[in-house]
Amino acid sequence: MSSLKNDRFIKALLGEAVDRTPVWVMRQAGRYLPEYRQIREKAGSFMNLCQSPELACEVTLQPLERYPLDAAILFSDILTIPDAMGLGLYFIEGEGPKFKRPVTSEADIEKLTVPDPGVELKYVIDAVSLIRKELDGRVPLIGFTGSPWTIATYMVEGGSAKYFSNTKALMYDRPDLMHKLLQKNTDAIVAYLNAQVEAGAQALMIFDTWGGMLTTRDYQDFSLAYMQQILDRVTRQSEESKVPIVLFTKGGGQWLEMMAASGCDAIGLDWTIDIGTARKRVGDKVALQGNMDPCVLYASPERIKEEVAAILKDFGHGSGHVFNLGHGIHPGVNPDHMGALIDAVKELSPQYHQ
Amino acid sequence: MSSLKNDRFIKALLGEAVDRTPVWVMRQAGRYLPEYRQIREKAGSFMNLCQSPELACEVTLQPLERYPLDAAILFSDILTIPDAMGLGLYFIEGEGPKFKRPVTSEADIEKLTVPDPGVELKYVIDAVSLIRKELDGRVPLIGFTGSPWTIATYMVEGGSAKYFSNTKALMYDRPDLMHKLLQKNTDAIVAYLNAQVEAGAQALMIFDTWGGMLTTRDYQDFSLAYMQQILDRVTRQSEESKVPIVLFTKGGGQWLEMMAASGCDAIGLDWTIDIGTARKRVGDKVALQGNMDPCVLYASPERIKEEVAAILKDFGHGSGHVFNLGHGIHPGVNPDHMGALIDAVKELSPQYHQ
Repeated sequence: MSSLKNDRFIKALLGEAVDRTPVWVMRQAGRYLPEYRQIREKAGSFMNLCQSPELACEVTLQPLERYPLDAAILFSDILTIPDAMGLGLYFIEGEGPKFKRPVTSEADIEKLTVPDPGVELKYVIDAVSLIRKELDGRVPLIGFTGSPWTIATYMVEGGSAKYFSNTKALMYDRPDLMHKLLQKNTDAIVAYLNAQVEAGAQALMIFDTWGGMLTTRDYQDFSLAYMQQILDRVTRQSEESKVPIVLFTKGGGQWLEMMAASGCDAIGLDWTIDIGTARKRVGDKVALQGNMDPCVLYASPERIKEEVAAILKDFGHGSGHVFNLGHGIHPGVNPDHMGALIDAVKELSPQYHQ
Repeated sequence: MSSLKNDRFIKALLGEAVDRTPVWVMRQAGRYLPEYRQIREKAGSFMNLCQSPELACEVTLQPLERYPLDAAILFSDILTIPDAMGLGLYFIEGEGPKFKRPVTSEADIEKLTVPDPGVELKYVIDAVSLIRKELDGRVPLIGFTGSPWTIATYMVEGGSAKYFSNTKALMYDRPDLMHKLLQKNTDAIVAYLNAQVEAGAQALMIFDTWGGMLTTRDYQDFSLAYMQQILDRVTRQSEESKVPIVLFTKGGGQWLEMMAASGCDAIGLDWTIDIGTARKRVGDKVALQGNMDPCVLYASPERIKEEVAAILKDFGHGSGHVFNLGHGIHPGVNPDHMGALIDAVKELSPQYHQ
């Protein structure tokens, strides 16, 4: 594999000096791009797109053709693992993910088995290898997973949910069963992430989209404890270099100190917290990734630039910041506004690294 | 008007000594109660129910017949104000509130006028008077409003929203217009709450359901600043006694110190923060209301009791705590489980007030 020509992203995650703040955007390959919508239509379904290593590779690279981004992220979905466990993932346009066979009983949990990433998830691992080859060292490739808790919510609810009633009923009434489910998810994730690293992923991100719906105690016991297990068990070193891991709990602003103590290299921040306050709270313990409100991209390029300036200033001088949105880019955003964001980071951030 | 036989709720909000922790539950009059569903069906629509003072009164009192609650809350909706401004509120079962004429332009905002609570909102004020009479001093009556920001999101989106794209586009691109809209909402709310107090409301609550979707700076400028204005301008004293005001920003756990400095008497907490931690952060400045995860009510009565015990213990000794959920009770909850919650607070809380 060719060595990295642009390692700004990896260095910033490890707190090493860089020339400017690196930038990438969650869901940077996605519906706001006309070229994405074209391939998505050709593929017929979102699942076809995910399951074809060639198409997943093409989509992963699309935003890099348009914008001078500092990282690529594997195009995939956080629900590939439960799909590989046999739950039958499918998508209905506008309704989000669904499972044909959700987990509804003790017996359902007992019979779940940890998938072999080289078999049931081979299409993802093949995509990682192919993307690494096609990237040819231009920028690092980020692999990812959903958190054990977040994946469990979809498995139990059978899809998205407003209040997570079924998942929480299970958690409150049968914590033993919930722990069993979370342990299986964790074992599956560890094998999955190790296989991604082996295939060439140069950094990893854990998306804990729904950890923020928990009480502080339950977040520690049912989400963070399992993410910590992942951080302990995943190989953090490839043949070439360290593989930093970013932990992102949406709505986790109250728990930054706990997250920083988990052993992750960086915390992903949503937009509700000032990044300067976050930096004061975690010190040099971890890097920070984020955290512009994705809705700023609906405003004018001038306004976008102002907001980028405010966030860079709020973080202040020195390394340890990866610029990103605080959540995935929204489908209706004008691609030129994404360009304005990237340009602003490139133009305004070098002064903080002198 | 008859004097209060049970003033535990008011006293706790003012930090005065009580014999046990008072308890009420957000949406305690609602769909989880079969007797509510019966009246709701008879009324034909949710709006008919809200707009009939007799039915609103009957529904308000229903949970008090079943449970030994320490407060009643006016049965109404946070969107009565924009409806009175002419936006045409209606409800579609399972889809939440909608407006026939959302605010989509500068002209729409310019032409909004502040409704006269004695005219356009007379049905609410009449309901308050009637409920006070029917309550006959049994427990205090809570009046309420949505926050200026929260109401504005519905006005601009035309209903509920996932990302508040339109509202935030307006806020980021035309902050001047957003401030104009928020000021009109604020003026309307001040008149509305004053009329509620005059009609007999003995405490007030401001529901800032969507303030937590903002960045810290925007929360201060676009939500908290207007709530502070309300707190400054509303009459906090009735002929009988002080009228305490509770400020509830869902997802506001990061901003408790700011909220405590706003001039409110109490902060409503969602379930994501430990109430003990919250108490340490705000000190004796304000009382706290909350904060059990509403999903605990899906678990067994034994588990509910455990969770009540944990929250009471976490708050600790002394007054200044009103027990509640961290969000409205979910429609599918077993009414006996609500009973278990109330019983547990009654049984377990006196030890913290000796």
